[in-house]
Order: sequence, then C-alpha cells, then structure tokens
Amino acid sequence: MNIKSKIINETIKSIDLLNEDYLKKARQRLDSLTKPKHSLGMLEDISSRIVAIKETVIPTIEKKAVFVFASDHGITAEGISAYPPEVTAQMVYNFLDEGAAINAISMQTGTDVYVADIGVNHDFPDLKDLLSIKISRGTNNFLKNPAMTSVNAVKSLESGIKIAEKSALHGYDLIAGGEMGIGNTTSAAAVICLCLDLEASEIVGFGTGIDKETWILKVETVDKAIKKYGKKNMSALDVLSSVGGYEIGGIAGLMLGCAKSRIPVVADGFISTAAACIAIKLCPAVFDYLFFSHISSEKGHKLTLEKLNARPILDLDLRLGEGTGAVLAFPIIEAALSVYNNMNTFEKAGVSGEKQ
Amino acid sequence: MNIKSKIINETIKSIDLLNEDYLKKARQRLDSLTKPKHSLGMLEDISSRIVAIKETVIPTIEKKAVFVFASDHGITAEGISAYPPEVTAQMVYNFLDEGAAINAISMQTGTDVYVADIGVNHDFPDLKDLLSIKISRGTNNFLKNPAMTSVNAVKSLESGIKIAEKSALHGYDLIAGGEMGIGNTTSAAAVICLCLDLEASEIVGFGTGIDKETWILKVETVDKAIKKYGKKNMSALDVLSSVGGYEIGGIAGLMLGCAKSRIPVVADGFISTAAACIAIKLCPAVFDYLFFSHISSEKGHKLTLEKLNARPILDLDLRLGEGTGAVLAFPIIEAALSVYNNMNTFEKAGVSGEKQ
Repeated sequence: MNIKSKIINETIKSIDLLNEDYLKKARQRLDSLTKPKHSLGMLEDISSRIVAIKETVIPTIEKKAVFVFASDHGITAEGISAYPPEVTAQMVYNFLDEGAAINAISMQTGTDVYVADIGVNHDFPDLKDLLSIKISRGTNNFLKNPAMTSVNAVKSLESGIKIAEKSALHGYDLIAGGEMGIGNTTSAAAVICLCLDLEASEIVGFGTGIDKETWILKVETVDKAIKKYGKKNMSALDVLSSVGGYEIGGIAGLMLGCAKSRIPVVADGFISTAAACIAIKLCPAVFDYLFFSHISSEKGHKLTLEKLNARPILDLDLRLGEGTGAVLAFPIIEAALSVYNNMNTFEKAGVSGEKQ
Repeated sequence: MNIKSKIINETIKSIDLLNEDYLKKARQRLDSLTKPKHSLGMLEDISSRIVAIKETVIPTIEKKAVFVFASDHGITAEGISAYPPEVTAQMVYNFLDEGAAINAISMQTGTDVYVADIGVNHDFPDLKDLLSIKISRGTNNFLKNPAMTSVNAVKSLESGIKIAEKSALHGYDLIAGGEMGIGNTTSAAAVICLCLDLEASEIVGFGTGIDKETWILKVETVDKAIKKYGKKNMSALDVLSSVGGYEIGGIAGLMLGCAKSRIPVVADGFISTAAACIAIKLCPAVFDYLFFSHISSEKGHKLTLEKLNARPILDLDLRLGEGTGAVLAFPIIEAALSVYNNMNTFEKAGVSGEKQ
C-alpha cells in the first residue's frame, strides 16, 4: 500500500542500518577495558548499539523522556476489558497529577513524562505536559468497521514522528513510548497476529486482569477480526487502520522518528511491541534503533519478542504498560554507557591480561 | 559445629523472620494504588519485603554502598584460572582509582564503593576507601590443606558483620557485597557443592574465560575437594574453612550483619551466592533480607539460585563479579520503593476500579 504522507515516506527513507565501523570501534573499546571480554553481557550489546546509533565514540545520555499516548477503543463495546472505558481519561488526569506508576518510576530515574491525548473520549482543558494531538474520540469497534480510516492511521503515525522530531530539538536523547487505553491489549493482540501471522489464542492475554470467560470472548473477538481483515501481504497501514489504536500508531511513529533523529528508543510491553511490529513492517531498519525493555507477563508477549528476534532487558512480571518497563530499563542503559565511557583500559590501569 | 564467636552467635540469634503484619500492610497499600493488582510483578515483592525488613510503612533508601571484598586463593596453583593471581591486587588499585566496572556502575547509580582487603597477597599502603582487614595473604591450596583454619573462617565472618554494623551507623540503608579474587569461582563452586550437595560438573563454570581443557581440570579439582572434605551434616563453618575464601566469608558475614541491622542486602553473582549459601546455612532466616540481583552466565549459578528458591532481579549474561550485578539492581529496587511511596490511591485519584 502506497502511503500518502511525505513525512512518513521521508522518515522511512532516512533510516539507515547501523554503521558497522562504529560497532567495530565500540567492540574494540569494550575489549580494552579492565574486565574479561564480553563479561558484561547485554550491557556491552547496549553500549555498542548506542555508539552506532549516535555515531559517536563518547555516547552520553543527557535528557530522557517518556511519551504516554492515550486513546480509547471502540472494541471495549464487546466487553473484553476488566475496567470501564472512562478509566482512560481518569488515568490521563492521574498522569498529569504525577500519581501513576509511570510518574513514580520516572521521578526515580530522572525522566520527563509527557502525556499525548491522541484519541481519548474526553475533552481535556489545556494542561501542562499534555500534548493535544487528538485524532478522534477513540477508534471504532473493529468487529463492525475498521478501527480507523487510513487517513487517520497516517495521522497517528505522523503525530508520533513529529513528537520525536520536537524531542530531538529539545535535546532528549533517550526516549520511550508508553500508552494508556482501556481495551488496547485486544487491539494490540490483533495487530500482532496480523503482522506476524499468529493465532489469536497464542497471543491474547489477560490484560489488566480479566477472568477466563472474558479471555475466551477476547480470543474469539481477535479471531473474528483476523478472519474479517486478514489477507496476504497485508500492509502495516492496513493492519493499523483495520484493528489498531491511535496510541499504537503514535508509538510506531515515535519509533520511526527517533530512529531518523538517531535517538535510541525503548519499547515498553505488549502494546508498545505491537507498535514496534507496525514500525518494523513499515521500515525493517528501525529495529536497530529499538531497545525492548522487558518481557511482560501478558501471555503473547514472549512469543512476539521471539518472533521479532528481540531480547528484552528486564523480566519482572510487569503488565501495567504506561511505559513503566521502558523507563525502568533506562538506568540499565545508562549504566551500560557509564561502563563504556568511564572504565580504565588494561593498559592505563596496569592490570595483566589473560594468560597466553 | 559450635562457633566460638560471641559476635557471630549474637548476630544469628538476633535475625528474625519478617513480621507478617508489615507484609500484609504493604500488600494492602499496593492494592490501593492506581494499577491493576499485582501488575508491577517483582517490584511489588521487592517493596513489600523492604517494608517488612525496615518495619516502616514509608520505606526509603538514602545511602547505598557496595563493599568489594578482595582475597587471593591458593587453589590458583592448580592452574584453574584464565588470569594470573597478581590481578587480584592490580584490580584493587583499579577499584581505588575508580577505573573498574563496579566504579562506573556505582557512579551511575549513586553508590559508594569501598574495597576490603580481607586476604590479598600484597601489602597495600593506607589508601582512601580501602578497608584493611587482612586475615592472611590468601588461602591455602585446598587440595593439599584446608583453605583456612576455623579461627580464620570465624574472623572472615566477623569482619563482614563488623562492616555491616559500621555501615548502619553511617546511615547506609541498601548494601551489596562484591568480590575480587583470582581463583574464586573454583572456591565458590566447591562451597556451593558442599552446601547444597551438588556435583562439581553441574556447578563449575568457565569463570573469567577458561578453555574447555582447563574447565575439565577445574571440575576435577572441585570433585577432589568434595571427596576430600565432604561429609554428612557438614557445618557452614566446616565448608568455609575447607574450601572457602576470605571474601566468601566476608560477604556471608556482611549479609548476616545487614540482616541484624534490618538493612536489605543484595547478592551479586556466583561468588556472592556461594556466600549466601554459607550465610543461609548458618541462619536460614537471613534469606528474607537478601535480594538476589541477577543470574550470571557462570554455569552453575542458575541451578544454585533454583536450589535456594531465589528469584533474581536481572538476567543480563553478566559474569564479572565485583558487585556489578548487585549495584545494577539498585535502581530497580529504588524504583520499586518510589512506586510504593509516590503513587496515588484509586480513591485519591478518582479512578474507577475493576468492573464488578
């Protein structure tokens, strides 16, 4: 499917695979430091990748942000969620009041929190840290009609790209996408199934805590959606408009925009990984700029990460979303860079190397 | 075996199982916060446990330290290590020069680093942040004679307890034990096998990076030690003096001392877990005060953690020691407390709960 959007097409075109020279330089530096080779495992992978993303041999992180994209979902009419839909708007106020989990974790890790109303079924007044990018007051029930028009799917991606571009101008150099949207694990499951050709029952989970009966209904709902919209060589935009959510499009756009600006971008849990599926389907090279922060306890997340060949940083049984897992991984990423930048080399420290 | 040490016996006697009332209070608070119940997984377990350890409903962490216990090992004479023994002393200088991985990670996480010379085969001058608690210039080759006398095993435990007590006086309220000692994965493997009745081949790993041939020699070495010293109902002190290291005793003492002072104490990797085996064998209740920071890529670590019923916080293929994994887990622990202390309740935020 041809995307009628200059900004999306230009963004995709600008995202290159990482430069092998920088990866090699990073490897050399890491191997010169006072530790057995590769003994810092994933920390070494993280720092190498950031060297190559930022194309600098002194990679630093100065300013961190999480963007919580909030949106409502018409699919909640099918009774697939444990919480009523009005919780989406209530939680937006809670974020802005700094009372949610994402605020507490961001406070601890020195991360700025912004909330983007990309499709909440509520009119917010102007509020500090609230980005008003509402496309509509929520998606359609995708069992009846496509979740959104393709024009709106494009808009959601563009919104995310624009946020990444502004963030780069403001000096943010580590970014996470989070989300809030009652019903969005159902939408995300459908997105993942259509992107990766998986079965509903493999991917649908218990979301915020539904019972077994509701889970069966949720599987059926996603199954129906796959049957209704699934087709060979379905484009990312088709998937997004058929069963997606505005927040999923927004996060996918954020990922693309960050990659364009050479900013490492951290995926959160299940919804965020659905967004990554869209972003990767649009532009496979974006994968190199993505860090998968954690493996959530939402049923299908593990399999999805495996299919994407993504190794998550944390595994803490989180299933909250909001960006919590992503921001929790920030200190690990920063520690990886501190190791890279601040350790002595064998030579400088006068430490003997391995026996020959 | 009766331990002839007032300080050890009093410490063990003073360590109580956690108070169930505090665990219940913590659970109630966590369930009142604006998130689905249990949706923050391990973060909720961590904060509950710290509430009960500190016996306060407003648990905070103000000051963090890692103590790197350094010691040499006579067993290196058997040729079981990839690095020459003089690296132990060289690395102590590197720690004090702030050039090692533990320094870089501690810098990033706001952790004070202290180095304890508990048995390095080198005479250090007086240096800032170096605690001189040398017992001797390294252990004996335990294939020939017990690694240390039982008097020295007691001394190593006492040293760790005393460091914990001083730390409490200085206001440290989150503590990790780290280590440096060429040869100590061999000693730790033997300690673990004797404590948990495991086979050498299940537990011995590749340490700092030995080849397959050296690994076979290392397995044989530990196997011989098990045959030489192993007996029914072997006491923790017997294990420590037969095949242990001073740093292993020091860390075990640190764990006991922290528990006595109600300070959460974080185990690092393989060596630190061997120390935990000693501490738990001396006093099973200490387990409640211990956080296992990560599962290292050292072969036997996973099985050891399983046997201890310990769930590690991170899994990043680290195999460096020094306390690196423990200090890397500090921000996760702090984020868990930030969630506990700073989130809004459903009531305060006016957010709807689950549908009935």
